[in-house]
Amino acid sequence: MGSKVKTAITPTRAEDYPEWYQQVINASDLAERSPVRGCMVIKPWGYAIWENIVCVLDDMFKETGVKNAYFPLFIPLSFFEKEAQHVEGFATECAVVTHHRLEKGPEGGLVPAGPLTEPLVVRPTSETIIGDSFSKWVSSYRDLPILINQWANVVRWEMRTRMFLRTSEFLWQEGHTAHATKEEAIERTKLMLEVYARMAEDYLAMPVIQGRKTAAERFPGAVDTFCIEAMMQDRKALQAGTSHFLGQNFARASGIKFQSAEESEDYVWTTSWGASTRLIGGLIMTHGDDDGLILPPRVASAHVVLMPIVRKPEDRENVMGYTERLAQRLREKYYHHRKIVVEIDDRDIGGARGWDWIKKGIPLRVEIGPRDIAQDSVFVGRRDKAHNEKVSLKTEQFVAELANILDEIQGNLFARAAAYARDHTLTIEDARTFSDFFTPQNLEKPEIHGGFARSPWCGEEACELKIKENQAVTIRCLPLEQDRESGGHYPLPAA
Amino acid sequence: MGSKVKTAITPTRAEDYPEWYQQVINASDLAERSPVRGCMVIKPWGYAIWENIVCVLDDMFKETGVKNAYFPLFIPLSFFEKEAQHVEGFATECAVVTHHRLEKGPEGGLVPAGPLTEPLVVRPTSETIIGDSFSKWVSSYRDLPILINQWANVVRWEMRTRMFLRTSEFLWQEGHTAHATKEEAIERTKLMLEVYARMAEDYLAMPVIQGRKTAAERFPGAVDTFCIEAMMQDRKALQAGTSHFLGQNFARASGIKFQSAEESEDYVWTTSWGASTRLIGGLIMTHGDDDGLILPPRVASAHVVLMPIVRKPEDRENVMGYTERLAQRLREKYYHHRKIVVEIDDRDIGGARGWDWIKKGIPLRVEIGPRDIAQDSVFVGRRDKAHNEKVSLKTEQFVAELANILDEIQGNLFARAAAYARDHTLTIEDARTFSDFFTPQNLEKPEIHGGFARSPWCGEEACELKIKENQAVTIRCLPLEQDRESGGHYPLPAA
Repeated sequence: MGSKVKTAITPTRAEDYPEWYQQVINASDLAERSPVRGCMVIKPWGYAIWENIVCVLDDMFKETGVKNAYFPLFIPLSFFEKEAQHVEGFATECAVVTHHRLEKGPEGGLVPAGPLTEPLVVRPTSETIIGDSFSKWVSSYRDLPILINQWANVVRWEMRTRMFLRTSEFLWQEGHTAHATKEEAIERTKLMLEVYARMAEDYLAMPVIQGRKTAAERFPGAVDTFCIEAMMQDRKALQAGTSHFLGQNFARASGIKFQSAEESEDYVWTTSWGASTRLIGGLIMTHGDDDGLILPPRVASAHVVLMPIVRKPEDRENVMGYTERLAQRLREKYYHHRKIVVEIDDRDIGGARGWDWIKKGIPLRVEIGPRDIAQDSVFVGRRDKAHNEKVSLKTEQFVAELANILDEIQGNLFARAAAYARDHTLTIEDARTFSDFFTPQNLEKPEIHGGFARSPWCGEEACELKIKENQAVTIRCLPLEQDRESGGHYPLPAA
Repeated sequence: MGSKVKTAITPTRAEDYPEWYQQVINASDLAERSPVRGCMVIKPWGYAIWENIVCVLDDMFKETGVKNAYFPLFIPLSFFEKEAQHVEGFATECAVVTHHRLEKGPEGGLVPAGPLTEPLVVRPTSETIIGDSFSKWVSSYRDLPILINQWANVVRWEMRTRMFLRTSEFLWQEGHTAHATKEEAIERTKLMLEVYARMAEDYLAMPVIQGRKTAAERFPGAVDTFCIEAMMQDRKALQAGTSHFLGQNFARASGIKFQSAEESEDYVWTTSWGASTRLIGGLIMTHGDDDGLILPPRVASAHVVLMPIVRKPEDRENVMGYTERLAQRLREKYYHHRKIVVEIDDRDIGGARGWDWIKKGIPLRVEIGPRDIAQDSVFVGRRDKAHNEKVSLKTEQFVAELANILDEIQGNLFARAAAYARDHTLTIEDARTFSDFFTPQNLEKPEIHGGFARSPWCGEEACELKIKENQAVTIRCLPLEQDRESGGHYPLPAA
């Protein structure tokens, strides 16, 4: 931005990025804090995005042969302890159920009663409880592969929470598969990573790097963790989905054995993979601007808001009639093509109305007044353009072109995010430049991070730890395309 | 049944109805017990039914203006205590979270650590936590109505559990609405009851009676509870959905106030309504027979299974090719019409293959062998007919007629269930006949209940209690159509 212009969100991204993020969530009515520590209420405008994400991912999963199932919320403590690394990774953040009733306490209020003989852990993830089922479902190679997904809530007691990004309870899906061979399990791990990348890029318009985590950053109990990493507008990375090759670790822990075609007995090879409501956090931080949220059309809660402009009471009938007929035409025309959601907002609140929808990130705002109607045209504002840029379009043209306009917006958002990530990703091959790049005082705007650096790494955990401690820079992943190009590990560190 | 025929399920309904129910679930692979007390694992074949129910209900809700949102799993104890009757109703069956970590105990194993200052209740229902949000969302009549639904898991610690019907954790939806007037809230309560009735009858093919609960059977904290009740094949009633008019009870408890158009301040009027995975239990008990599950096509996990018959290896290529092309044609033809799921089962396990699908309740089994192919026909078994009745149909005709056949099956299942309910519902107006009807030794088969009795009731709770104690008969509901006909309460008692 050049000269200071009034923005709908205070502070701006440049002024205070984390606070801007929170204010966008408030202003767009996506979610609110709940009275339960670390938990959030996902409001309808935010939940609709999640419903769209669920719908897209669910179809993609099913296309690869995955079926949905549902496993208990509670995990007996003894199950949880079966895999040593796993329990170590999650023990410090578990909600534990210890009682199954409430009764009047000595001071009159209710107190927990009916202590359980074995405490139950509210699932932070379900490898151990699902592994128990798998051990009953598998006996022969004919029962394999098992390809299961569950849509569920999970709880990880977080000390520092941020809406959508890190909350004590969150919604996610967790896929769990079991295979007869190591190769097949690795292939599935990578396939699901690609599904996540496709979801992120084609629907959230969020460019990602597919990569492998270092040993230090692996999922507790995994042999190999793959991830997609996206650059946010503070130039930091967001892990937007992970896919784990679990080897035979959890199969051993849960006793998931099978008889091979050659009649030898072996443990199965398992994978797990998850994506969560955190994707919504990524979407906000990838596309939002200083006026609020910007929703990619393919996952938008709604696509078009029609705003009738009635200045004189005698215009009301004409303007409302025109607006409602237009809404009806759009809904009918695009009903089968794609679920395009058209809203009418006839609140009489002046300019606040348009700003409300700008903050909510709806792709298209359409104003309809008596003069527009006289010319059979509408006045269209696109959220991917600077918000003052509105154009008059013939109504016929708008109706005919709507799907194309939305596709164009989707494309623009992706292109813009991709350019941003590209512009802030450097290939840095020497230690000095690397160090300079990540030293805040060397940055143009110290509060905004430098970006991603593609840099070689010796592979030593000591080095990884050193850059993390000295410069708060972490190896986000070892990009997979580098595997292909160079045949070896070529890391991508970034904070 | 006349003479004893071999059935796929042991015991039969007549021999031991509750055990038959459990065996149908096992044989159809719907669900299994979990190692967590009172919780179940919903397996893919069962979960797919739930997905279909969710899809249908969700659309119906949205058509009435309801939007989805998500509220925390945990409810602070202090919130839960806000409504006195409510807490009394649920206090004896609450899972309580008291700690937020695990650490090594004195004996080496993990023990709960990090005690919470205020225990958290795992939601058994969400009136109090959602009420807290509503109190922030509402200030003026312009903010009303609020029409919210949430798809969620809830926990009610049950001592005696039965799969799908009563489990400690279950999946459900809970709708919560707030209104400016009492009349509007009552209208919404009844509207949602009608939505449930439509779901039950038009999709689950399960005829229901819409009615009002007696005071003794009301939801804890409600002013009025409405329900749909269906007759199972043991002639007992199943409550399949409830809709509650909550008056201003929860509004007062959570402080949900609004300023009316006349600028006076008042509490809002709220409703809540829920349906759960229990619907699947109802579906099993309404349609299942002694060979297993029978799925109504509109909520079936899959609709058609194609079973290639390959007796000689040299036939394989021809038969499999024909089968796959047929599957492809069906999938393409019916892709837009309705989501018809076609499976191919080419397992080489003899007659067990057909029986597997009979037990799973798939509407149509199609056998395809070399002789069928030579005549361009297929051999079709319908699950709504006695299972041995298979007919040869020209393949063209089968492809053309598939949707109609499924509709016919749907209609047959409803008609059969409706006839059963009608045949076992008596109007009984005197106490002696009523008493005889519900005395087991007077029944033809003492292990099967007599059915429903439509009988007058004085309205006294003492009477209600007496028939419950003496004859284990409960007033399931005061049917709504009687409201209309007689203008008064005309009860329908049944066990």
